[in-house]
Formats: sequence, C-alpha cells, structure tokens
Amino acid sequence: MPRTADVPELIARARDGQPRAIARLISLVEDASPQLRAVATALTPFTGRAQVVGLTGSPGVGKSTSTSALVGELRAAGKRVGVLAVDPSSPFSGGALLGDRVRMQDHATDDGVFIRSMATRGHLGGLSWATPQALRVLDAAGFDVVLIETVGVGQSEVDVVSLADSTLVLLAPGMGDGIQAAKAGILEIADIFVVNKADRDGADQTVRDLKYMISLGRREIAGAFWRPEIVRTIANRGEGVTDVVAAIDKHRGWMADHGELEQRRQHRAEREIEAIAVAALRERLGDVRGGQAITALAKRVAAGELDPYSAADDLIAALRR
Amino acid sequence: MPRTADVPELIARARDGQPRAIARLISLVEDASPQLRAVATALTPFTGRAQVVGLTGSPGVGKSTSTSALVGELRAAGKRVGVLAVDPSSPFSGGALLGDRVRMQDHATDDGVFIRSMATRGHLGGLSWATPQALRVLDAAGFDVVLIETVGVGQSEVDVVSLADSTLVLLAPGMGDGIQAAKAGILEIADIFVVNKADRDGADQTVRDLKYMISLGRREIAGAFWRPEIVRTIANRGEGVTDVVAAIDKHRGWMADHGELEQRRQHRAEREIEAIAVAALRERLGDVRGGQAITALAKRVAAGELDPYSAADDLIAALRR
Repeated sequence: MPRTADVPELIARARDGQPRAIARLISLVEDASPQLRAVATALTPFTGRAQVVGLTGSPGVGKSTSTSALVGELRAAGKRVGVLAVDPSSPFSGGALLGDRVRMQDHATDDGVFIRSMATRGHLGGLSWATPQALRVLDAAGFDVVLIETVGVGQSEVDVVSLADSTLVLLAPGMGDGIQAAKAGILEIADIFVVNKADRDGADQTVRDLKYMISLGRREIAGAFWRPEIVRTIANRGEGVTDVVAAIDKHRGWMADHGELEQRRQHRAEREIEAIAVAALRERLGDVRGGQAITALAKRVAAGELDPYSAADDLIAALRR
Repeated sequence: MPRTADVPELIARARDGQPRAIARLISLVEDASPQLRAVATALTPFTGRAQVVGLTGSPGVGKSTSTSALVGELRAAGKRVGVLAVDPSSPFSGGALLGDRVRMQDHATDDGVFIRSMATRGHLGGLSWATPQALRVLDAAGFDVVLIETVGVGQSEVDVVSLADSTLVLLAPGMGDGIQAAKAGILEIADIFVVNKADRDGADQTVRDLKYMISLGRREIAGAFWRPEIVRTIANRGEGVTDVVAAIDKHRGWMADHGELEQRRQHRAEREIEAIAVAALRERLGDVRGGQAITALAKRVAAGELDPYSAADDLIAALRR
C-alpha cells in the first residue's frame, strides 16, 4: 500500500514543473487509487487550458521522429509540452528500436517536457479510460500543449485521438497509406495531414491522392467547412516542422472562431464521464454476489442452455437488487 | 427498415451451408436489430461445437497468406471453416493489396468456407461486442473450425483473441518481433508460435529467442504446464501448414484433458455476457433524460466546474431513478 499523498502539495509541485509530482498524480488517477476522487476534484479548477494535439499514423511513417521534432519546435517557442504515448510501437512506450529512443533523449533532461507511456495493460476500462485522466493531470500541471501519440489501428486508439483539439494524421510516400487511411476511417478524423519523408519518390502522388480524397469528403462544421491542411515534412532533418505548428495554430484559431473548440471539449467531457460511469458499472456487474452471478450465468451460456442476451438481462437485474 | 426475417428458416438454411443465410444472421446479431434476441435464443442449442482458433501477428509476418494456407489445409481434411477478420490490414477486411485478395479467391467459391470482415466501425460496444456474436452464428451454422484473424496491436484485438480455444502468434525472422511480442503481451496469449518465412535469414535466431522467452514464462494450468509449441512455416509455399494443424489439435487435446477447454469457454461466455450488459448500460446512460443529462454534466466538466468522477456518479444515480 503506497503512502497517502498530500494532494494539494502534489498539485502545487506539478504546477511548478516537478516531473515526479506529475508522474505521481497520473499514477493516482490512472490506477483508480482511493485518492482518485480527491485528486480529480483538486485538479478541476486548473483544467481546460492545454492545447491537445493528437498524432496518429501507421508504423513506419516516422511518427516518433515527427513527435520528437514537434516537441523541439514547440520548446523553441517557449511552450511546455506533455506527451502521452499510447502506441505500443512507440519509443516512448518502450517498444521501438534503440536508435529512436536515443533520439528522444534530447528531451529527456528538459523540465519543460514530460513524457508518459500509456501502454500499460489491464486497466480498469483500458486506455480509453486512463488517457483522459493523464491528460487532465498534464493540463492542470500547466503544460501549454499535450501531444497524444497513437498508432492508427484499433478502436481504442481512435477513441484516444478523439480527445484532441486538433488531430494530425501522418503518412509517408509509397506505403499505400492513402488507401489504408480511407479504409480505416482515419480520413474522417484528420484535421491536418502530414506527409513525412517528403523527399522520397511518391511524395507528390501521396499529396495528390490526399487532395482528391479531401475533395470528396468535406465536413460541415457550424455551417462552415474546415478543409484539412496538407503539410510536407522531412522530420529527421526538421524540415517542415514549423509549417506543422502553423497549421495546428491555424486549425485551432478556426475552431475557436466557429465554436468548434467548445463543442469538441464538451464532447470529450461526455466521453470521459461515460467511460468512468461504464467502468464503475462494469465493476459492479463483476461484483454481483461476489462475482458468483456472472460465473453461474456463464456456465449456462457455455453449456448452450441460455443465450448471452438473456444472461446479460439477468445480470443487470441482479445489479439493481 | 429491412423486412423481418424468418429466424428458424434462416438458421436451417445457415446450417445447410447457405452463405447468404449466414451473412443475414450475422447482420441481425451484430447490428443489434430488433430480432437479435430471437436469433440469439434460436442459435443457442446449436452452439458450443466449433473449434475456435485465433491468429495474430504484426503486419508483414504473412498473416493473410498463413490464414489462406490454413483454410486450404483444413478444407483438405474435410472441415468446414469460418473466418472472422478483425484486422484492418487484412485482405478479408479489404485493407490489403490486390495480390493478397486474389490469393484468397481460391476459397471464394467454396461453400465450405465463409469469410466475414469485422472491420465495421461505430458498433455498439465495438469489435469486442460484435465478434463473439458473429462467432455464435458460425458455430451454430455448423462450421467445424472458426479462425479469428487479428492484428497484434490494441486492446480490442487482444480481447477478440481471448475468444479462441487456441491462439496462434505469427512471427517472421528479422522483424524484431520477438521483442515486440514480449512488450505487447502477445507472449502471454500464445498457445502456438508460428515462425513464418522460415527460409529467411534469422529464422533460427527467432526460434532461439522464442525458446528462451518460453523458458522464462511457463504458465501453470490446472496443475500442469502447456509449453507453447513452435512451428516453422513457409506459408506461400504451403510448407509446415500440416504441422500447424497438428499443433492446434495437440493443444486442443491437452486442454480437453486438463479441463482447460471448458474453463476457456466459460471465461469466453463471461466476457460475452459482460460486454452485452455493459453495452446495454452504456446505451441507457446516454438515454437518461433523452441524452440531456450527460450533455449538461459535460458542459460543467468542460468548464472546469465539476470533476468527471462526480459527474459519472450523478449520471449513474440518474439512471437508477
């Protein structure tokens, strides 16, 4: 049992930029510690300030290099940057090659940068539950920008990207990414496309494909259209990264002008509340009659005596008693 | 509004091997149609017979080729085979290159094979909800084996693999897969490792790495140990596929002998019941006061006036009124 934390003290130290205090707060919220509610309440007045940027893309597009370059650019502009890595192949979450990890060491000793891996499994409610909580901590700790990096596969990753004010989708030439993106629904979530490795053959074709796809799928927001920007980068040489930051700022300005920023944040809060409520209800379902209720029902379903819908009805009815 | 289906008639036709009837039944259960419960009840007596095999692995290991070869091998043994593809990069779900798709055409005209993509988004509860329902249909339709193919990334994919009686983890030499697998928790779910592209440099090293990792993490089941098998294949030449089928059968026999098959199936039923109950509760949460309850709470959370945990408490309390 860890010692009880002095929450106001921790928050004060986190807001002072002390990484250990920030890490401790994230642990307190993501592990559903007994102090979770005290922390959540104490964080609340400080939240709602950070600019939240999502980054997604298939493995191999240079996502980690781009994140690193973006962190460098934002730091050069004097901004404090938090990174939440929910990509199992990311160097931040420990999955990638040593070379990538060494590259991120540039930021490892910088107090204006805080990096957290969200790769932990077995969470109550999974990543889609834990990530918004970590985001709240970084927001309250006063980070100007929080980057959420995720691989563009799987529903939970898409859920996580939906936390962002602006979402970057990274592509690289010649990976068939255009088609993949369309299939995976990534197109619908992109506010900005970043074509990385833009010095490679096929970059022009990738940009043309994207322009064509964008022309097919204009999204109306508050009576106006945001036409996703396309930015070319060579992230490992830092080229084009300034343009990425400019595109993010432009998108944020556009959203603020059209009431969309408020909408997105409200939507984010809805999902967060829902995720917490669902996790709480899920836990209660498992606890009905000390866990015996679901086991008994599962035996009957596995034996082909009962369908799982009727079993679920029974379980919910038992919850209400 | 689609016409109301004659459920017993559909099930009879599905059990007779008619692909359109099978597809219709899957649509009825995965889209939570008004007839879902009627279908679920009618399917129940026919379930619990199919052997369920999960296949997972990173993109590029030859997963689709292996699936195709495995289907061919099982067909040659006279077995009817269903495939549920939950991998967005899979040819079955439409994400991969034309060449792969052409390869699967071998099975496209075979009535003993049924292939279903589970890549659809926006499902009530997502893939982890829809996939077990589709599995029930294929089971009741009398398929001897159901292969669930998924990419080894993301919690929802791991959830899906947990439906299987036996789980194959595919690797290929020289992709750093061993390390990736360990990081991603794939190791813990593997019953059989398939080292594909075994004619490539590094295959011996991959096998050695796996053996070492297996030696570190023996899993006790019912007082005995299942030591994951390692099989080498060259799937595009069909080499080693017989050994894969033999390993699956051996694992199934071992599980039956140790009571583990029943355990896994009961566990699968528990997850299925839970997923249905959670989806139902989630829907009810969104419906409290016609959806106004969560919106009002989200506004206060987004404004920094209320923490999301207290908001979730309020929402659950409103649900019970």
